[in-house]
Amino acid sequence: MTRNDEALHALILAGGRGARFWPLSRKARPKQCLDLDGQGSPLARTLQRLDGLIPPERIWVVTGRDMEAAVRAELPGLSPEHILVEPSGRNTAPCIAWGTQVIGRGAGDDAVVAVLPADHAIRDAPGFRALLASATDAARQTGAIVTLGIKADRPATGFGYLEQGAEMGEWGGRRFHLVQRFTEKPDRITAEALIATGRQLWNAGIFVYKVGAMEDALRAHLPATAQAMIELGRDPGRIADVWGRTDATSIDFGVMERLRHILTVEADVGWSDMGSWDEVGDQLPALPGGRGRARRIVSVDSEGCVVHALDKAVALVGLRDLVVVDTPDALLVMDRRRAQDLREVLRQLAASGEDGLT
Amino acid sequence: MTRNDEALHALILAGGRGARFWPLSRKARPKQCLDLDGQGSPLARTLQRLDGLIPPERIWVVTGRDMEAAVRAELPGLSPEHILVEPSGRNTAPCIAWGTQVIGRGAGDDAVVAVLPADHAIRDAPGFRALLASATDAARQTGAIVTLGIKADRPATGFGYLEQGAEMGEWGGRRFHLVQRFTEKPDRITAEALIATGRQLWNAGIFVYKVGAMEDALRAHLPATAQAMIELGRDPGRIADVWGRTDATSIDFGVMERLRHILTVEADVGWSDMGSWDEVGDQLPALPGGRGRARRIVSVDSEGCVVHALDKAVALVGLRDLVVVDTPDALLVMDRRRAQDLREVLRQLAASGEDGLT
Repeated sequence: MTRNDEALHALILAGGRGARFWPLSRKARPKQCLDLDGQGSPLARTLQRLDGLIPPERIWVVTGRDMEAAVRAELPGLSPEHILVEPSGRNTAPCIAWGTQVIGRGAGDDAVVAVLPADHAIRDAPGFRALLASATDAARQTGAIVTLGIKADRPATGFGYLEQGAEMGEWGGRRFHLVQRFTEKPDRITAEALIATGRQLWNAGIFVYKVGAMEDALRAHLPATAQAMIELGRDPGRIADVWGRTDATSIDFGVMERLRHILTVEADVGWSDMGSWDEVGDQLPALPGGRGRARRIVSVDSEGCVVHALDKAVALVGLRDLVVVDTPDALLVMDRRRAQDLREVLRQLAASGEDGLT
Repeated sequence: MTRNDEALHALILAGGRGARFWPLSRKARPKQCLDLDGQGSPLARTLQRLDGLIPPERIWVVTGRDMEAAVRAELPGLSPEHILVEPSGRNTAPCIAWGTQVIGRGAGDDAVVAVLPADHAIRDAPGFRALLASATDAARQTGAIVTLGIKADRPATGFGYLEQGAEMGEWGGRRFHLVQRFTEKPDRITAEALIATGRQLWNAGIFVYKVGAMEDALRAHLPATAQAMIELGRDPGRIADVWGRTDATSIDFGVMERLRHILTVEADVGWSDMGSWDEVGDQLPALPGGRGRARRIVSVDSEGCVVHALDKAVALVGLRDLVVVDTPDALLVMDRRRAQDLREVLRQLAASGEDGLT
């Protein structure tokens, strides 16, 4: 690999837990590894989506020990040493620092990195590739970190908001703006006020930057993490030794919110964060009584249900808007509107010593 | 065994299908073999309920080929030859004729037979034994067929109704009445009119009679069946040969409704016909979110649910009055008020070639 070639690399973050898809999701089988619609897992599709833009030898994945086996199983086409396994979970900043360091070691400071969460869905893959190419150009030419923004169309409280400031130029026919302000997961009233401005994008956690730009940002705002990476540079096998000295924080809170010069571009590519059974439900294949996957399904006067039951026949009788998810050791039946209460289910299971089920 | 000893025998009818407990109930595992509450199956409890009144050597069971294995497994204490397996399903009249013939062959025409459905629940076992003893005395002394009646307290359309006529005497402190009229499963308006008379009992299908009394009744009203039994008397191994010549009808329609001299007595013993998941639900052990059995259950703001899931943890979130039944190959989620729609589920499964699930 030539150094300083400005080539685009992918750094896929596949360490998320995704407990909101219990009982299908587990510690050892997180959301990004679940094939909800029979079309492949979000992780596998995150790689496929790069096809033609970034070859496998420029793709890296960071994940956690718990889920390493499941992640490797999803990525047969990736060289095993391209899967970086965190010694322990320390949030996204150390993962991005490590991945950036590894990519920079091979490709140099001018290489461009696209950080991609593995657990999102993006409907328009060609549009996404074109957008990523534009963002790469912007990152190369400006030296800034670019963050893709999703048009905020409702006062959601689960996302971070980016306020678009001055326009900084056009790349690939798309206008890039300065980020004026970050607002992490606002309350409902704040979210409504933000939406009213008409200048807000959601932070999708997709970043594009030159290796050197991220290294500078880390040095300025997370110096302990930057120092740990410098030590790692001298002895790449010592990740376990330096890991504990990194800052256990998110890249948003630790770096992005503190930078004054971040670019953003609106990503109109059918993005969804796949936040819950309820949200994903509408994207799944239709079946009698609702949507989802089942070996066999019979519905009598039922509708709006989200079903996942690969091993058995399911009969739905007189139901409206339920989630029904069957696995070999656990079964969930839930009102679709109560998706947020899955946390309480997991808490109760853990409290009753059923950790193995979580 | 002494002939003509007037001893009481039990003839347990265990050939019913009980599709209303799908997916737990199947052709090969009918309702009477299901342990819904962890206290044993209705069939096993039907035998236990006779403990101290009728010894195993005077208990006989009639069942079908499909479910023979499941029935035998429920009755380890019963001599295998006391389980009579119908060559084919021909409704209750031939079963009762055959069982009565077998009992009479060993014990004579004065022996008393109590016909007991295997798929009902009776809460008050001592009360039931005392009632059966009274009915036995009545059957012995009057020579009539006695049918136990359940106080009809609501206009149910799923039962046959017995109208109480003249009082015929007291046995064991209980008043026995002539049955004035049989009304098979009435429509709703008729049922309401019947209830208004205040003289109606439900036919529970529990009959007590001397062998000779039933033989006379069969000769009068189902002569082909009576003739088949006479032939069988000459060669007991020939059941398969004579079976096809019996009348394929119920004992109620074929005999009881046509007899002029039947006695009845009110059976206040906590009887239930276990007609559906919904009905049985209220009798099951309490668990979070409702009643039933589960390996582990977690409920978040759920109530009134009926759950059966022995192999897995179940989480119920935001649910009201659902039936949730999990088996290795089929899962049912149903509004409790829609229990009658299980037929449609079975019809659809059969139509789609999934007979193995029914």
